[in-house]
Amino acid sequence: MNPILVETTRGGMRESAHRGAVAIVDADGALVASIGDVERPIFPRSAVKVLQALPLVASGAAGRLGLVDEELALACASHNGEPGHTAVAAAMLAKAGLDANALECGTHWPYREPVQRAMAAAGVAPTALHNNCSGKHAGFLCLACHLSGGIDLRRYAKGYVSPDHPVMREVTSALHAATGFDLASAPRGTDGCSIPTFAIPLRHLALAFARLGTGTGLSADHAGAARRLRQAVARHPFMVAGTGRFDTVVMERLGERVFCKVGAEAVFCAALPERGFGVAIKIDDGNNARAAEVAMAAVIEAFVRLDDSAASFMRALSDVTLRNWNGIEVGALRASTALRERLGTPS
Amino acid sequence: MNPILVETTRGGMRESAHRGAVAIVDADGALVASIGDVERPIFPRSAVKVLQALPLVASGAAGRLGLVDEELALACASHNGEPGHTAVAAAMLAKAGLDANALECGTHWPYREPVQRAMAAAGVAPTALHNNCSGKHAGFLCLACHLSGGIDLRRYAKGYVSPDHPVMREVTSALHAATGFDLASAPRGTDGCSIPTFAIPLRHLALAFARLGTGTGLSADHAGAARRLRQAVARHPFMVAGTGRFDTVVMERLGERVFCKVGAEAVFCAALPERGFGVAIKIDDGNNARAAEVAMAAVIEAFVRLDDSAASFMRALSDVTLRNWNGIEVGALRASTALRERLGTPS
Repeated sequence: MNPILVETTRGGMRESAHRGAVAIVDADGALVASIGDVERPIFPRSAVKVLQALPLVASGAAGRLGLVDEELALACASHNGEPGHTAVAAAMLAKAGLDANALECGTHWPYREPVQRAMAAAGVAPTALHNNCSGKHAGFLCLACHLSGGIDLRRYAKGYVSPDHPVMREVTSALHAATGFDLASAPRGTDGCSIPTFAIPLRHLALAFARLGTGTGLSADHAGAARRLRQAVARHPFMVAGTGRFDTVVMERLGERVFCKVGAEAVFCAALPERGFGVAIKIDDGNNARAAEVAMAAVIEAFVRLDDSAASFMRALSDVTLRNWNGIEVGALRASTALRERLGTPS
Repeated sequence: MNPILVETTRGGMRESAHRGAVAIVDADGALVASIGDVERPIFPRSAVKVLQALPLVASGAAGRLGLVDEELALACASHNGEPGHTAVAAAMLAKAGLDANALECGTHWPYREPVQRAMAAAGVAPTALHNNCSGKHAGFLCLACHLSGGIDLRRYAKGYVSPDHPVMREVTSALHAATGFDLASAPRGTDGCSIPTFAIPLRHLALAFARLGTGTGLSADHAGAARRLRQAVARHPFMVAGTGRFDTVVMERLGERVFCKVGAEAVFCAALPERGFGVAIKIDDGNNARAAEVAMAAVIEAFVRLDDSAASFMRALSDVTLRNWNGIEVGALRASTALRERLGTPS
């Protein structure tokens, strides 16, 4: 039974509570701290997009196609479908000689409602470029371009989301190497964007992010790719999520000191390179990101050395004032005392 | 520790799980069935709007102003802000000699994204009429009109959301009478629409809905009002929620056999008049309605006699196939075996 990590209050009373688990691991695989069950395999979903982008850089594909920082950052993104995101996804595809028709992620309206409304006002319908995963998939197609070796690219790339396609085999291999977890025997599901997702224990996910932040335990190619991707995201944190989103605002504030990435069903992973630690969080109920974000903010407060201003900034994300439609304060969304105590920080 | 009531699966593995509690009570207050802690007070939020609407009818206000079924149904609603909803809210206000400026619920874009997009395409901005609570608040203002007794209504109604305003005192008194729970000493918070919300045990909330469905234990005025409101909602289930919403589709299908109403933070209440039972559910994590809906569907399957077609319809709501953006089946959102067993229905 995992402990309560995050709670909401109203009128001074706890209204709702989120249980979950957190693993904080160093690059040698030692548990620095943990809360709850960190050995149970969980589907990391989009939290591992940066690991899935390692082959794009490590293979030489990104260099050969001249991908720039914004594009590498978008390859790691679950983005809002804002105009800045879709333009960069289209540019990546163009460098591979492709367009949105090659994307196999499916189409949905942008996550961000004001973007939906702006599109509707302009009479524009969504395409696969607006799918939050379009940057990751554009990266897969750039990798396909590199791997295709003279075969007609459209034909070669078709079905790139399948576990047995050479692109997905490269991606799975990188995930296996980074996590050190045997994916061949892991439970496998299909992700929202149709690629496979493998169930991996939090301890192994945290290890992968410790390796991402330090290079320790990765091949030289993957270590270089990890550094390049982290730098690209730190330079363009807007690309990885978008306006108002946790990942974007935290990395805008803290730069390369934190690499963090949310995933569906309340998963959150991070690298804290200064400490050499990796972090992986799963909120049991998985219902949306609110609790995973609060828990991640509390972990960052505990393990990243912050000046007073940055500490206040992070505290506002780990102890969130809730207001109603009239702007009246009605309660809080905050890290539990149990989580704060385990992290060694004051409530 | 409450048990797991609802789970999601992916690739055959449990991905996320929701804990919670369910109380099913008859009109004499006897527990018919329960799961988890049904004595802990929880904020029922919008799940009790029908109880908050009792004074509107019982006072004679609705009759005096000539409110029709659609309007009474909207007074019990957390609606989508669709054109049909806002038009009815405006009509209710007009009958009291008021307009949207009198509403104190605040303004937000409609919950339903296609409605937002249609408004944006038409260049229309939201008003307080689009607030999901505008029907309830229009009902409060109709009650204010009745209570004002010749005082200038705009002046009398001002601050009607305050716990000490005569309107809110009537509303609280009805909630107290129906639940049989002492609200004077209950924890009190402020709801999303600025009215007070009182923490009440699930057992008492279920009792209130057993009374709503049977009239037993209510004053004659409240019993008549309960019947009138249930009939109005059964005739116009679109009003209480809207396109595609659980409350609307279930009551469209089952009519007066079920009155059900969702509340924020994963609360769900229902009356099952044929059995004389009331139901109250709180999912611990409160994160959104998905788990509360699945649990309510499982309860309806267990306690309402359904023909094969209706049973299949409800099963599709208690064992939901999850598909990704490409329409590929990726998993399920379903009532747990523990919940099914407690309810005495097969998994």
